[in-house]
Amino acid sequence: MRTRKKKWSAGELENNPRILRDEKEYDGRLAEFFGNSKLVHLEIGCGKGRFIIETSRRHPEINFVAVERDETILATAARRAEENAAGSLVFILADVNDGLDFIKPSEISRLYINFCDPWSRKKKWAKRRLTHDTFLELYEKLKIPEIFFKTDNRILFESSLESFSRKGWLVKNISLDLHASNLPENIMTEYEEKFSAHGPIYRLEAEPRKLHII
Amino acid sequence: MRTRKKKWSAGELENNPRILRDEKEYDGRLAEFFGNSKLVHLEIGCGKGRFIIETSRRHPEINFVAVERDETILATAARRAEENAAGSLVFILADVNDGLDFIKPSEISRLYINFCDPWSRKKKWAKRRLTHDTFLELYEKLKIPEIFFKTDNRILFESSLESFSRKGWLVKNISLDLHASNLPENIMTEYEEKFSAHGPIYRLEAEPRKLHII
Repeated sequence: MRTRKKKWSAGELENNPRILRDEKEYDGRLAEFFGNSKLVHLEIGCGKGRFIIETSRRHPEINFVAVERDETILATAARRAEENAAGSLVFILADVNDGLDFIKPSEISRLYINFCDPWSRKKKWAKRRLTHDTFLELYEKLKIPEIFFKTDNRILFESSLESFSRKGWLVKNISLDLHASNLPENIMTEYEEKFSAHGPIYRLEAEPRKLHII
Repeated sequence: MRTRKKKWSAGELENNPRILRDEKEYDGRLAEFFGNSKLVHLEIGCGKGRFIIETSRRHPEINFVAVERDETILATAARRAEENAAGSLVFILADVNDGLDFIKPSEISRLYINFCDPWSRKKKWAKRRLTHDTFLELYEKLKIPEIFFKTDNRILFESSLESFSRKGWLVKNISLDLHASNLPENIMTEYEEKFSAHGPIYRLEAEPRKLHII
């Protein structure tokens, strides 16, 4: 999703203390960067940050890193984080399609994927989905122990369930209509609030399993 | 689902040639019973048989066995099978909760479970679901290589996905809205036609995997 570039975003990107700019500063050193021993949770594709800002406010015991590839959207998220006194939360401008090189194995203890691009219009695009097998392999390499995933896109959720199964991951706490389920703490994204009237929100949690298929 | 007992059902049960009565005749000898080398597909909980009758008509290359625990419903199904010139299809009066002792390992090459009782009102009933872990273990023992499963019950489908995942099965061809998907051949059950207007029909295919979780 692209928004019209705003003049302030360049300044925001340069001056907002929550935006990590110099890869050398955090590359493989996220825990060190935060300067504490709290766990680090990552969101990829954070959009304007509503979800991760509110989550960080409710969970001061966790460090949060939010990744977004769109400069203007990232600047908006970082500004909002400052305005809303977010918790231990920083932002990184990056495109997950270029890999997650700045993360080293075992740095991240939970990954959030919320309403990512479903790439559902053409079959050949399926491999671009953030839950496609190749991405799951990346998350396995990074030793991320759990993923919390939600979407309103049926085709994306169907194919995600199949990817997780193919790769042998354990899926649990599946909801095929999140807003009708009794999930005690659901923090909505901007997108979720806007589009949930059009159909169900799907959600799952997944954990990689080391398994041998024989 | 219980229907009012009809007087004719006792006679139907005794005289309909499609109903297998003497366990000794078919116990572990289904292929022998059919007298040919075709594969055998099983439906448990066939109801009034609409699905399995139509499926058997379209697939003369397959032998079908349909199991139902309600006498009157089974009698209705068997009578309809005769009236509608079903294919190679026989019926067995049995309650799956008593096990599937009359089936021996490797006799069945596909299992259909359509709109089984969701047992969704009480949590402690979950283990009665035909896709609960203990049933999956039974299907594994019987070396059933694939299950085709559909339901309109969200809670049942969610818990089924979780059971299949826990047991390491491969799930594929998942549809979270079967009637909106492009499945070339969907044969509807009586129940499905009646209730699909109230919400989506969920469907999946699942295969046991021999795996070691380490």
